[in-house]
Amino acid sequence: MNSKRRVSRAPVARPDPAQPDRNRRAFIARSAGLVGAAATGVGAAEAAAQGLESVPPWMQTMGAPMRGYGQPSKFEAKVQRPTATGYATVTPGAGASRTPLQDLEGTITPNGLHFERHHNGVPDIDPARHQLLIHGLVKQPLIFTMAALARYPMTSRVCFVECSGNSGPNTVNPKPPQVTAGAIHGLVSCSEWTGVPLALLLNEAGVAPGADWILAEGADAVAMSRSVPLTKALDDALIALYQNGEKLRPEQGYPVRLLLPGWEGNMSVKWLRRIKLTQGPTHTKDETSKYTDPVPGGKALQFTFELGVKSVITRPSFGMKLPGAGWHEITGLAWSGAGRIRKVEVSVDGGATWKEAALQGPVLPKSLTRFRLPWEWNGSRAVLQSRAVDEKGNVQPARGAWLANYAPPARYHNHSIQSWEIAADGSIANVYL
Amino acid sequence: MNSKRRVSRAPVARPDPAQPDRNRRAFIARSAGLVGAAATGVGAAEAAAQGLESVPPWMQTMGAPMRGYGQPSKFEAKVQRPTATGYATVTPGAGASRTPLQDLEGTITPNGLHFERHHNGVPDIDPARHQLLIHGLVKQPLIFTMAALARYPMTSRVCFVECSGNSGPNTVNPKPPQVTAGAIHGLVSCSEWTGVPLALLLNEAGVAPGADWILAEGADAVAMSRSVPLTKALDDALIALYQNGEKLRPEQGYPVRLLLPGWEGNMSVKWLRRIKLTQGPTHTKDETSKYTDPVPGGKALQFTFELGVKSVITRPSFGMKLPGAGWHEITGLAWSGAGRIRKVEVSVDGGATWKEAALQGPVLPKSLTRFRLPWEWNGSRAVLQSRAVDEKGNVQPARGAWLANYAPPARYHNHSIQSWEIAADGSIANVYL
Repeated sequence: MNSKRRVSRAPVARPDPAQPDRNRRAFIARSAGLVGAAATGVGAAEAAAQGLESVPPWMQTMGAPMRGYGQPSKFEAKVQRPTATGYATVTPGAGASRTPLQDLEGTITPNGLHFERHHNGVPDIDPARHQLLIHGLVKQPLIFTMAALARYPMTSRVCFVECSGNSGPNTVNPKPPQVTAGAIHGLVSCSEWTGVPLALLLNEAGVAPGADWILAEGADAVAMSRSVPLTKALDDALIALYQNGEKLRPEQGYPVRLLLPGWEGNMSVKWLRRIKLTQGPTHTKDETSKYTDPVPGGKALQFTFELGVKSVITRPSFGMKLPGAGWHEITGLAWSGAGRIRKVEVSVDGGATWKEAALQGPVLPKSLTRFRLPWEWNGSRAVLQSRAVDEKGNVQPARGAWLANYAPPARYHNHSIQSWEIAADGSIANVYL
Repeated sequence: MNSKRRVSRAPVARPDPAQPDRNRRAFIARSAGLVGAAATGVGAAEAAAQGLESVPPWMQTMGAPMRGYGQPSKFEAKVQRPTATGYATVTPGAGASRTPLQDLEGTITPNGLHFERHHNGVPDIDPARHQLLIHGLVKQPLIFTMAALARYPMTSRVCFVECSGNSGPNTVNPKPPQVTAGAIHGLVSCSEWTGVPLALLLNEAGVAPGADWILAEGADAVAMSRSVPLTKALDDALIALYQNGEKLRPEQGYPVRLLLPGWEGNMSVKWLRRIKLTQGPTHTKDETSKYTDPVPGGKALQFTFELGVKSVITRPSFGMKLPGAGWHEITGLAWSGAGRIRKVEVSVDGGATWKEAALQGPVLPKSLTRFRLPWEWNGSRAVLQSRAVDEKGNVQPARGAWLANYAPPARYHNHSIQSWEIAADGSIANVYL
């Protein structure tokens, strides 16, 4: 009836008002024996007269019963996290899988599709046995069972988590890889997290003189660990227990993780088992062997914590094909580690001119923000870009300007502008501008 | 080390600073052959010295690899939607399952735990074949494929969906049922929904003179259908395609549902296949045989659309046991079909006195709002209640006051106050006050 090629205004047959019973009779003849045939019949006949399939197969059988825990439709089985296989052959549990941003809408990432980044796979932790130790430069070391943590006052907040290696395919490849928005930029996800403010627990333990950093260590087999300035730990750090309402998923740190809103993802240590208060950073293997940014002159920046202001158009993007000229909605996601998104501008001519997109409210700090702009495509070549500005006035840089700040092999903290080239036939390519 | 009975301040052994190597040696001896033993060792020895399990089993093995679509931890397998079995024996797909509110936190309901209410089970709909018809009193009937719908401008909003039969166990049982908060009040869930404003599609079809209602019909085998005033359809009604970022789950109407924020749940017709513009309501079987409220004098109220202001304490609640006197957080959810929650008050003495709880922001209209109040329990009998007030000034009624408005067998639209009685031993009962 209607193709994918245009918003449908299919010519439809109007029912003949002089013969209302003809359609009804036709339907009842076809549907004899159906549950609820009479009630269904009236509508089905009308609908059929208008060109709608009268009684599709799923209306001819009883539906499936209730389930204790639901799953997506089998028709959505292709919506999966693509897995990066670079290091997976060495240690099967080390690597990353990405949120398929191009298949999603809104701002919340469903828990089954939150990106993963593991340094040695997902540990299978018994919450009745797992404990969290706070020690080091404290007045009183404390050990918390999960049951003990659950008694503390909690707070909830929506925020993104982004791996500092996000957008790596656009950083390390000399030619733009022709893969989906999610395969490039999908090491970012957004959830409503709930847990106990870390400040509250540190206050219980008592911060001893001299402490100005913490070490956070996970209970995975590599004991992934990072140093965090105490100021952040006392600001908005959360000991997170829940993700989008339910307990954390194993891939996101079950039963407990650190959550540092707006800071590079792996500092939000998953499967958290230990927080040690220290004087100065610990310089763990995980913060010296990785996550540093080489700069011109043979030096490297360490401890780039706050993530830059960033955005990406998720629709249209690589893997889709515009069905033809006319109106389309350009939409995507913007975020900043510094706070709220103030503005997103969209260009359809590779950055020559810009138009301000609408932001979907509520615009929350350190959260994914959905932007939308209606666009009438004239059917000729176009290059789509989005450029985000945050409430601190930070502006998302162009790719070249961003790269110029670093020396090869820079691979982290790429928050530069993504360009999608639309060809006259509607196909879409990743391009560097 | 620490029991569930109190917030833990376990006496812990401090490591001997004069013998730093002793602990390290002890660890290395135990962990020879471990991946990353040296790096793990330092921390593990320190932790062990503080009383933390030195190398739990999940740190002694490589973790699980990435997955295309994640699932909850096996240790959370008990967190399920309880299923109402009343009518399930007649038609297995007809009935309801409830969100386990007592197990959840925050305000977003994970998609796998969104409540279900089906009149004939969950149809298995092929989105490539499913279509939506808009007809009746329109200038131009239109049929939309799912691909056509996807081209329209979308909007996202967080809102609750509540079945008008929610809290039924507290309405129809003369004695309070001793079941969980979710088993009583769990026919409410909250998601970020994304879709096309219905007003936009109606504008495309063109509303013909005389139209003042719509009929919305589902593609389940009973063609569940409801009448909706055109004013609501043109206000905030959404043709929803996504739920918490991903496509609708089958149980919530895949591939397309109507969403009427703040109105009784079954009007948000799932598996939507037809919208007919009409003069006056259609009086379908689904709005005459159900969802009416008998009142004193032998009459009944039909078409109670907007859901009343309501709240429920989810923790502590039936099924939990307070581990002892001392500080506890009282928390729960509040919502109103009329708009935002303005205030939630909590009583611990069965309504004699009230204290205002903190509301977790952002407080969004027609959405679940989390409230929290720290409470120091003195260890003697207490009765916990919450009372919500919305921005229109509507106040949640006590159970008796609410019941007095209706005649038996009233069973819908119960938004009265829930009372949880806490005994001196910490056990919790559902009570009527």
